Amino acid sequence: MKKSIAIFDTTLRDGTQGEGISLSAEDKFKIARRLDSLGVHYIEGGIPGSNSKDIEFFRRIKSYAWNARFVAFGSTRRKDSIADQDANLNRIIEAQVPAATLVGKAWDFHVHTALQTSLEENLAMIADSIAYLKQHQLEVMLDAEHFFDGFKHNSEYALQVLRTAANAGADWVVLCDTNGGTLPHEIQQIVSAALQSTQVKIGIHTHNDCELAVANSLAAVQAGALQVQGTMNGYGERCGNANLCSIIPNLQLKLDYSCIGDDQLQQLTSVARYVSEIANVHMPVNQPYVGNASFAHKGGIHVSAILKDSRTYEHIQPELVGNKQRVLVSELAGQSNVLSKAQQLGYELDAGKPAMKAIIERIKQLEHEGYQFEGADASLELMLRQAIGGEHEPFQFESFKILVEKSNNRSVVSEAIVKINIDNEPIYMAAEGNGPVNALDNALRKALSRHYPGIEDMHLTDYKVRVLDESDTTAAKVRVLIESTDFKHTWSTVGVSQNVIEASWEALVDSIRYALYGKEKQLQTNERKESLGIVNH
Amino acid sequence: MKKSIAIFDTTLRDGTQGEGISLSAEDKFKIARRLDSLGVHYIEGGIPGSNSKDIEFFRRIKSYAWNARFVAFGSTRRKDSIADQDANLNRIIEAQVPAATLVGKAWDFHVHTALQTSLEENLAMIADSIAYLKQHQLEVMLDAEHFFDGFKHNSEYALQVLRTAANAGADWVVLCDTNGGTLPHEIQQIVSAALQSTQVKIGIHTHNDCELAVANSLAAVQAGALQVQGTMNGYGERCGNANLCSIIPNLQLKLDYSCIGDDQLQQLTSVARYVSEIANVHMPVNQPYVGNASFAHKGGIHVSAILKDSRTYEHIQPELVGNKQRVLVSELAGQSNVLSKAQQLGYELDAGKPAMKAIIERIKQLEHEGYQFEGADASLELMLRQAIGGEHEPFQFESFKILVEKSNNRSVVSEAIVKINIDNEPIYMAAEGNGPVNALDNALRKALSRHYPGIEDMHLTDYKVRVLDESDTTAAKVRVLIESTDFKHTWSTVGVSQNVIEASWEALVDSIRYALYGKEKQLQTNERKESLGIVNH
Repeated sequence: MKKSIAIFDTTLRDGTQGEGISLSAEDKFKIARRLDSLGVHYIEGGIPGSNSKDIEFFRRIKSYAWNARFVAFGSTRRKDSIADQDANLNRIIEAQVPAATLVGKAWDFHVHTALQTSLEENLAMIADSIAYLKQHQLEVMLDAEHFFDGFKHNSEYALQVLRTAANAGADWVVLCDTNGGTLPHEIQQIVSAALQSTQVKIGIHTHNDCELAVANSLAAVQAGALQVQGTMNGYGERCGNANLCSIIPNLQLKLDYSCIGDDQLQQLTSVARYVSEIANVHMPVNQPYVGNASFAHKGGIHVSAILKDSRTYEHIQPELVGNKQRVLVSELAGQSNVLSKAQQLGYELDAGKPAMKAIIERIKQLEHEGYQFEGADASLELMLRQAIGGEHEPFQFESFKILVEKSNNRSVVSEAIVKINIDNEPIYMAAEGNGPVNALDNALRKALSRHYPGIEDMHLTDYKVRVLDESDTTAAKVRVLIESTDFKHTWSTVGVSQNVIEASWEALVDSIRYALYGKEKQLQTNERKESLGIVNH
Repeated sequence: MKKSIAIFDTTLRDGTQGEGISLSAEDKFKIARRLDSLGVHYIEGGIPGSNSKDIEFFRRIKSYAWNARFVAFGSTRRKDSIADQDANLNRIIEAQVPAATLVGKAWDFHVHTALQTSLEENLAMIADSIAYLKQHQLEVMLDAEHFFDGFKHNSEYALQVLRTAANAGADWVVLCDTNGGTLPHEIQQIVSAALQSTQVKIGIHTHNDCELAVANSLAAVQAGALQVQGTMNGYGERCGNANLCSIIPNLQLKLDYSCIGDDQLQQLTSVARYVSEIANVHMPVNQPYVGNASFAHKGGIHVSAILKDSRTYEHIQPELVGNKQRVLVSELAGQSNVLSKAQQLGYELDAGKPAMKAIIERIKQLEHEGYQFEGADASLELMLRQAIGGEHEPFQFESFKILVEKSNNRSVVSEAIVKINIDNEPIYMAAEGNGPVNALDNALRKALSRHYPGIEDMHLTDYKVRVLDESDTTAAKVRVLIESTDFKHTWSTVGVSQNVIEASWEALVDSIRYALYGKEKQLQTNERKESLGIVNH
């Protein structure tokens, strides 16, 4: 039988302490639904004593059924006061959740400096607060703040904090490396010492200031901790909390503990990306396990080896965590990457042929100019198709004009006029938009819609602008990446120019060419006549 | 006497295998200069056998004096061939560097599957290649690829690879966790086993696929490894290589090893950010030690404690690695963050006063609309100054018009016209630019330059566009962050709008207001008369 480790997610509480992260009650609710489906055991939802948003969140969750246990967070009672008159403790009870985390000081220096009270009063604050919540039938965890720093400075007092919590009825004591400065071998020693001094179950809560939060969590579990606290994508104060997206697969796939179901583990990548979207924080491509590049191969030797056996350069099957293998095309890649990409797209290319060399040269040239096909598969496919030949262009570009005007106290007006040709028929179209690119997008779609009614099914889902040479800023080159969808597929295109409008135009046109190509192919197979009727209208 | 650990930087070789990373010979040269000044012991510059860019790089470095030893990388000779006729090995010799790394297979599965040769031939390839480079007086390191996976599957063969390298004269054997799937406790055991089976010095080379590369490097050093290979910011294939920006301070500040000088350690943050700029990869704000948020405090309780003693929530002094403490202003923060920010800016605010409440309400409202002051200190300061009152506005806005035109085969033309008022004098000015924002920037500066000649000293250094609601893309709100400099100071401003031009305008105007404010203050103190002459011209 595998040993079970309880997963405690604090994305909605400690995660929101990260720079740039702000979640509405609605955001929190959406994330909680996905965390619940992922199978985490505890979801810490917020601090009901601190703000109305968190109170609203705890109110909202009551109308749904959940598998996870919700947890409300708060501090131990104020110094020199009475627990049952403490507003924050009462807010926790009013939140009507099954569990609570109380943060209490475990480092004598903090008791003196931050709390400015006596060591005895701090112990009384911990004992009273736990006892009060236990009277209300809550599962109670003590977050022993700065436990590891406390242990190093005054181990007897740190352990006394744990024993006090246990005696007051705490269900868990959670050892916190609040400042993130402790090393794995210290974690292992100190967790072992804590386990010897108390009977209560122990959890671990680490921060990533030394880039060791994942290792520290594993070290604690290997020493005997039964609960791991962390956040999705490692969000949190300063360098973040321990990243559950790495800890869960490490525990489950590498150390043979049981955390969540195997089918739930396959949701990990999509949940991680969903949380990143909702939190509006860019996920680094190289994030372990769940990043877009976690199983992406760029080195030519690596690519040729994984084509023989993916175990040569993959430590696990990406599908176990819901991710997938990718082959990147770049100047380092050589032919094997381009060949493999072309094969994925359904083209048989001959490595020895001049066409192949020409494609690689063209990719190199464009990458040199600032294009990046690693994140723009659709633009790459269009280029491969063009190089192979026989591509029908859905329209010819003639010109565009954009006018943006703003007067004092009036909102901006953006207009675009485009002129294109479809089968030698000139089309001239104008549109407004919320910005210059939106106006251009609207005008181009309007111009195309009579000949290609399918164009209405697609829309843009992401629009990224990247300055390539930041030393000469508003005059620098920019790269625009656009992601589009027709609700069945998603594709990405790229444009590069000194002018953000021109770069956007280029990526827009690629996105539409790609969409129309798909449409044509589909129509030619299914209803060729009707399709031709539409195209040549 | 502290034990020394050799730092081997492979940013310029393995780092460039990361998705989205591409470095020109010039980029590599710039980064090498900074790495040399940082004090790393080895700089792996590239693969002279793979491309002309790396040959060019090795040619260029010859005309400078360096403290670090440069290293050229290549594979062991091809199977069934002769080392001194191997083109790649000869390119390494032609690179005329003092040291070389040879990658050789240490996992029997890879010998069979990827190399498709016999175990004996692989050993011969390793021995011949090392012996050949040693004949040419190179310091030679064997990168024992997949050593840890190899050891787990066939420990005798993996160790035989090390002994073969040692017997052939290798100066170092470097144990590689190529797939990044090994855990710290395994690293410690296997490094210990390797040390017992060979006399040659051992190095460690890990990858971050389990988010454990830093912990694994430390575990290897604690077991006896004397060299750590890694990259700046952890760049590298898939999830990246071991991050030297975390490993160096962990070894030096936490484990008392000696790596680089204490004064060099203080360059760490600026070197890390410089490499991120040159590599054109966004540095996550929460990157340990060197990130912009590594010592940033957002939680209200944290902020009030660090104001008492920064050790309460900082594991080291940020200055030791050249970073600094920051206090973030956000809805979580409460008054203490705003008070502390205002104090930093030189304003004495009273926590109880209605003005203070109004400022916090205004910040909350703006953050709700999508503004983010965590990365826009100058906009925040302007707002605080405005709330306190008495701010002289350098100009009044009347209107702007932007025209962007493109015709087939001609490049885009961008023009802007701005109308402003300075002391009731209307100024009407037009300018061209490489893009609409650049045109607007140029026109605004031209309009201001007669009254504020100082405006020519400043320029923009960074321009970021972020889509706030990606579900409705080109019509979504965007946030523009602008970073500006006058070569002495750097400041950041923010603008938010559905229209990228309007958001840019807002951030531009804030940037200029901030610059002019500094100018006025300076002139009023030093040469008040002349300053007033300029302002009221």
